[in-house]
Amino acid sequence: MSERTASILAVGSELLGTTRVDTNSLFLTEELEALGISVVRKACVGDAFEGLKAEIAVALDRAPLLVVTGGLGPTDDDRTKEAVAALLDRALVRDEKILGHLVERFRRRGIEMPRVNEKQADVIEGAVVLPNPRGSAPGYLVEARDRTIVLLPGVPSEMRAMFREAAAPLLARTARGPAVRRRVLKVAGMAESAVEQLVQPVYAAHPGHEVTILAAQGEIQLHFASRGTPEAAAGVLDRIEGDFRKVLGNEIFGRDEETLEGVVGELLRARGQTLALAESCTGGTLAGRITDVSGSSDYFLGAAVTYANSAKVGLVGVSPETLDRFGAVSEEAAREMAAGARRAFGATIGLAVTGIAGPGGGTPDKPVGTVHLALENGDGTRLHRRFIAPGDRALVRRWTTSAALNMVRLHLLGRADARRG
Amino acid sequence: MSERTASILAVGSELLGTTRVDTNSLFLTEELEALGISVVRKACVGDAFEGLKAEIAVALDRAPLLVVTGGLGPTDDDRTKEAVAALLDRALVRDEKILGHLVERFRRRGIEMPRVNEKQADVIEGAVVLPNPRGSAPGYLVEARDRTIVLLPGVPSEMRAMFREAAAPLLARTARGPAVRRRVLKVAGMAESAVEQLVQPVYAAHPGHEVTILAAQGEIQLHFASRGTPEAAAGVLDRIEGDFRKVLGNEIFGRDEETLEGVVGELLRARGQTLALAESCTGGTLAGRITDVSGSSDYFLGAAVTYANSAKVGLVGVSPETLDRFGAVSEEAAREMAAGARRAFGATIGLAVTGIAGPGGGTPDKPVGTVHLALENGDGTRLHRRFIAPGDRALVRRWTTSAALNMVRLHLLGRADARRG
Repeated sequence: MSERTASILAVGSELLGTTRVDTNSLFLTEELEALGISVVRKACVGDAFEGLKAEIAVALDRAPLLVVTGGLGPTDDDRTKEAVAALLDRALVRDEKILGHLVERFRRRGIEMPRVNEKQADVIEGAVVLPNPRGSAPGYLVEARDRTIVLLPGVPSEMRAMFREAAAPLLARTARGPAVRRRVLKVAGMAESAVEQLVQPVYAAHPGHEVTILAAQGEIQLHFASRGTPEAAAGVLDRIEGDFRKVLGNEIFGRDEETLEGVVGELLRARGQTLALAESCTGGTLAGRITDVSGSSDYFLGAAVTYANSAKVGLVGVSPETLDRFGAVSEEAAREMAAGARRAFGATIGLAVTGIAGPGGGTPDKPVGTVHLALENGDGTRLHRRFIAPGDRALVRRWTTSAALNMVRLHLLGRADARRG
Repeated sequence: MSERTASILAVGSELLGTTRVDTNSLFLTEELEALGISVVRKACVGDAFEGLKAEIAVALDRAPLLVVTGGLGPTDDDRTKEAVAALLDRALVRDEKILGHLVERFRRRGIEMPRVNEKQADVIEGAVVLPNPRGSAPGYLVEARDRTIVLLPGVPSEMRAMFREAAAPLLARTARGPAVRRRVLKVAGMAESAVEQLVQPVYAAHPGHEVTILAAQGEIQLHFASRGTPEAAAGVLDRIEGDFRKVLGNEIFGRDEETLEGVVGELLRARGQTLALAESCTGGTLAGRITDVSGSSDYFLGAAVTYANSAKVGLVGVSPETLDRFGAVSEEAAREMAAGARRAFGATIGLAVTGIAGPGGGTPDKPVGTVHLALENGDGTRLHRRFIAPGDRALVRRWTTSAALNMVRLHLLGRADARRG
């Protein structure tokens, strides 16, 4: 047996409701990948016996290893063990040793064991029992032909302990797959399709490395993975990253866990600069992203969220004439806001955002999504950028904060065309 | 065709990684249940064509309705449409009308459409096209024999709009079975355990209605459901809601889709009041929540995000002596910030937040999470509240914005003990 791929099945009607998602699979995926086993599908199914049996059969058909969580409890709707036994045509055999542990476990808590718990001592014929140090339900590892099934409790703390302490060591003996290493590169200020076109050749040059491109609210992520010895995998990832950087250059703002606000913060700190904002359509969410970073008080002085025009005049000194002639959503207003924010907070860099987040307020020449960004630096730099952000109000706002942060980033990197930022 | 049961399939390799779970299925489950359709299984699969095709076949075998999210984008690894077409042995036909819409959509944003987007105009033969008001990828409803397949984008905002506006009406024509109605009541400013104690008797009085309590970042949600004819179910929900309101009263700020920021906004509008903020530890996220509500410019004038002490003095006139004597995180500073915000923006209500979000900056007498809220109203009302918010930096900030909004809500409801808000 050598599982290079696995399915994960989460059992429980509560996972088919409107409030809960299966998060056990995130832990299991990471643990399996460390064993060189990649997860090719995940499913959730209810407690109904026939449906459960059918899902287990499907999963075994799709990958040689199946990890099931949930349905090992003492109640009538805990049927996972029964479904596996029925599918493999195996008996359930009462294990007196397990029964003794159960009785003892309850006795220690000063409770007489309820009769329903007895069935937790019934073992699938030929299965390896996985002890449960934190709960009453034992788990199982069952081998059938060229398939392996691991049954774990649904309670996260029990599931984690049992997998690490009992299941992983057994799987490690037989798993042959090399370990998987992952990396993510992040791009701001570009459309997904534009990135896609630039990186097509890189895909082609590195076949079979699961390169995935994800658009995440004004940010594009390039996910790629490699398997092999840790050293070999890292080497491949470095080569792929190098090729992405060749075509994307400075458009790549970060890697893995790095965030745009974190990267901009590091640049401000490194260059001894301070930032102040005048925000309109983003309504404080740009300052919110910047201050999500702990320690941001080192370089961020504050923001004037000038939602009303009176505030644009009163707090950052935009001239009423500018608002009358060009409107609050204009290059002129944005430039005065940037200068005013810099002045009001005494920062080295003033950044301004004004636009139409929608759904209302759009006009033919200024449709919803129209945004003006302006940046003024004490060194005399004055930048402006206009764009039309895509999507609904929430996306326009998020997209705009990313574009604004990216404008600061490109400015600090000293790139001439920060306008494109 | 009459679907009483459905499968949900989420497509995308990122959903098989270690960081993301499919949450679209929670929304879809609720929408399907409202149509009398119950979800019997959910699955996630990667982008690989053969695996995707196999999962679709399996899902159609398990339930007569399949809703698929993701894989409709323009990139090479968006293959959902192709997999369905191959499985049903149908052609993909270029639709010039859709192509026109796509080109126009890009033109409006001042971008020439990348060639890769053209494939988004290819339609599965015989499918109903579901328009995408918020993105470029159209969706599809395909009927094959006694099966129905609905294809939706993976981007939540696009998926939601498309399902509600285009897919649900088509499914409603044919769906049968008793509908499940759900309701959510929302409480702010209370600990989960305190809510739990108050509502225990209500649980007991209404057995078998799946009452669930969820704590969500400074907000407690009471979820409950009933099954039957829309009228009967609604009647039951009304009775349960009535009982919850008897024990919780004004602590309940909203229902179902209502948000705290939306409710506060309606109160401000109804009372003809305007709001201005001085935020420190929340760093703009309070203004951000308020302006998430479209139309908030009717009552929200703006915020001074006074992250640096110099900004507290310069923008909202906190006296340097106050900062020296009591510190920036103090009742005195909060009260001066509230008054200053009101004055600076010319609002009827000034609200101030100052605190220690952490992880650094805590002291024995002012531990991380210490927050002072202050509110000043032109009518002479002056409120102050101090609390210690739980959790890490992100939770402290979120929790604080909820407490601040709730303070305004209780003040506008004219409750004497708004201090508790």
